Amino acid sequence: MKVTVSRKAHFNAAHRLYRKDWTDTENEAVFGKCANPHYHGHNYELIVHVKGSIDPQTGYVMDMKLLKDLIKVEVEDRMDHKNLNEEVHEFIDLIPTAENMAVVIYNLLKPHLNKEHELSVTLYETPRNYVTFQG
Amino acid sequence: MKVTVSRKAHFNAAHRLYRKDWTDTENEAVFGKCANPHYHGHNYELIVHVKGSIDPQTGYVMDMKLLKDLIKVEVEDRMDHKNLNEEVHEFIDLIPTAENMAVVIYNLLKPHLNKEHELSVTLYETPRNYVTFQG
Amino acid sequence: MKVTVSRKAHFNAAHRLYRKDWTDTENEAVFGKCANPHYHGHNYELIVHVKGSIDPQTGYVMDMKLLKDLIKVEVEDRMDHKNLNEEVHEFIDLIPTAENMAVVIYNLLKPHLNKEHELSVTLYETPRNYVTFQG
Amino acid sequence: MKVTVSRKAHFNAAHRLYRKDWTDTENEAVFGKCANPHYHGHNYELIVHVKGSIDPQTGYVMDMKLLKDLIKVEVEDRMDHKNLNEEVHEFIDLIPTAENMAVVIYNLLKPHLNKEHELSVTLYETPRNYVTFQG
Amino acid sequence: MKVTVSRKAHFNAAHRLYRKDWTDTENEAVFGKCANPHYHGHNYELIVHVKGSIDPQTGYVMDMKLLKDLIKVEVEDRMDHKNLNEEVHEFIDLIPTAENMAVVIYNLLKPHLNKEHELSVTLYETPRNYVTFQG
Amino acid sequence: MKVTVSRKAHFNAAHRLYRKDWTDTENEAVFGKCANPHYHGHNYELIVHVKGSIDPQTGYVMDMKLLKDLIKVEVEDRMDHKNLNEEVHEFIDLIPTAENMAVVIYNLLKPHLNKEHELSVTLYETPRNYVTFQG
Repeated sequence: MKVTVSRKAHFNAAHRLYRKDWTDTENEAVFGKCANPHYHGHNYELIVHVKGSIDPQTGYVMDMKLLKDLIKVEVEDRMDHKNLNEEVHEFIDLIPTAENMAVVIYNLLKPHLNKEHELSVTLYETPRNYVTFQG
Repeated sequence: MKVTVSRKAHFNAAHRLYRKDWTDTENEAVFGKCANPHYHGHNYELIVHVKGSIDPQTGYVMDMKLLKDLIKVEVEDRMDHKNLNEEVHEFIDLIPTAENMAVVIYNLLKPHLNKEHELSVTLYETPRNYVTFQG
Repeated sequence: MKVTVSRKAHFNAAHRLYRKDWTDTENEAVFGKCANPHYHGHNYELIVHVKGSIDPQTGYVMDMKLLKDLIKVEVEDRMDHKNLNEEVHEFIDLIPTAENMAVVIYNLLKPHLNKEHELSVTLYETPRNYVTFQG
Repeated sequence: MKVTVSRKAHFNAAHRLYRKDWTDTENEAVFGKCANPHYHGHNYELIVHVKGSIDPQTGYVMDMKLLKDLIKVEVEDRMDHKNLNEEVHEFIDLIPTAENMAVVIYNLLKPHLNKEHELSVTLYETPRNYVTFQG
Repeated sequence: MKVTVSRKAHFNAAHRLYRKDWTDTENEAVFGKCANPHYHGHNYELIVHVKGSIDPQTGYVMDMKLLKDLIKVEVEDRMDHKNLNEEVHEFIDLIPTAENMAVVIYNLLKPHLNKEHELSVTLYETPRNYVTFQG
Repeated sequence: MKVTVSRKAHFNAAHRLYRKDWTDTENEAVFGKCANPHYHGHNYELIVHVKGSIDPQTGYVMDMKLLKDLIKVEVEDRMDHKNLNEEVHEFIDLIPTAENMAVVIYNLLKPHLNKEHELSVTLYETPRNYVTFQG
């Protein structure tokens, strides 16, 4: 009897989408305004989903306070109010698209979860654009 | 050709999370503020999902008015403006965590649906915490 | 390593639910207020989900600007500010329930996507009623 | 010591914006897609605000259940699932713009409120467009 | 040149609406389900508005971090996960309607603000019911 | 008989809060994480309110399409996907706090409106923080 628990979190950050090995013209052709060398930014809304069995002792799949704290340490403390390209080492050589960010966040959280738990990550880049990675 | 229809509903209730066979100290260690003996409460947002084939006569998987009425009778009338621990018999001996509530709601609704229909239940305890049970 | 990208869009339209081969009384018995011969209408919120591999060159599953433009051409330009029963030819002989609309929208978008991409469509008819079609 | 109480309600309807004394070309020049002779429609979100003194007996400005019922009788029963131009007599000779609708709704509700109460009406035509009328 | 800054916060609590000097029948006649002696509860969404001049040094009306901390100490720490009737001394002899709660919260916050600042308080009891107190 | 029409828009941008005439330590003491020299960013939600009389010819206070276009030209085209400190000349010597941004946006829009129209501007920096400037 498996239930998925989901926890929302929030951080904001600057980023730009570009490849160092492409010219400005090539970057702008592919990434448009998102390639702006001066950066732009977003309020990211993150939803972390953990699927597992209900512990009959507590009625919890996992303690949401622990999940909240884990998201804070692994995601918010690294990314909140940061420039993703410049200050978050996972994105030094990886374009911080929402897709890549969801995979990075998944990989940051996964090692800290119980092995029986299935993880998935939803990331809103804007209220109209979001991505989901299920591992 | 299966489509999932989803209907949102709302109820509010008081509850506390605790085990009768634990001391206050044990309950507070595990459930924190949620163990408060004087209760606290929530606006629960419920989303009921029913997956099935489209009836070619009506274009409906099922009539959403019937689903709305079913949720009212089986969930809202039992739980709305109630103390879950004291007044909802399913939680006399079951901790009313969101996880357990989703399973209870699933079991209340399931017998009233067409057998071919797949049911799942999403329950928001707060705007930031929610659970999903797919049976 | 597959990620789902989701894009929200909006259109509004008039419709009524009825079968031409039923009497008014029969239509009202099944469709209630939705059968009103003078029509009513909705703000439809559409979410289009595309699941695929991340392109290692761009970090994109697909360019969300292209997805936005595709939704505009295939869905918004056909349905926005329209009477679905009278002006959208897919609904001349198909009842424009949310379920049927999700299938029609799926079929309008699918041929324009990369074959490896999995499509699904979520359509909100009201803030409390929505449907999802995954193909 | 005055407090404003606000109650949200919902209805959906079809309408078109046009003047009978203008040609189709004139109507389309001013009202664009909203002049479509086949109608389009919206989910209207209505918020009714009533400002008054707190009754020291009850702690209420007014009973929200009474306000909810008043909105149902005066607004929802008249407009929900209706064609505003064809079926709501206030709009037979008045263009059902959101602005005019807010004034009409204000005038429908005002006579039923306590004279000391100040009324205002907010009406969302879409999630991005809304109007407020304060009398 | 005055600007209003607004900060949202959240707490949840149990309460019941009743007068000790009324019988159960009288309380139920006036307060309906809200009089339930076993309590029910809500997720309260609080928005605190502070209007004042922009400090030309900082570009702030007031530091939102200080406002956030003030709301935490004065409101959340007193009311979150509490039974308002039993545990929040302002409501020992005052019915915890949303109206009275908005006034109490106003009075808790006001002494801690700069005298030139105008305060107002919006409190959502449910997503459909809210109140505003402007002092 | 005056009605307020409100239109929502969206843009995203990078910024940092700091004074050039302060040291890094001074800036961090006042602006905290918002002073980060590498910038961070936000999805800004803008609501523009215009209050005026209803034109009896059209039923409009003003054509919302014109307001939408005005916001696009005056605000979105200047600020969307930009670094406010580096690329928006109004903020070369003005700290881009939400308060200052609301005043700047007000001043950009005001000259283009009818003189009888009253303007106000609401700007969400995050879903929990917003400001309003009424001129």
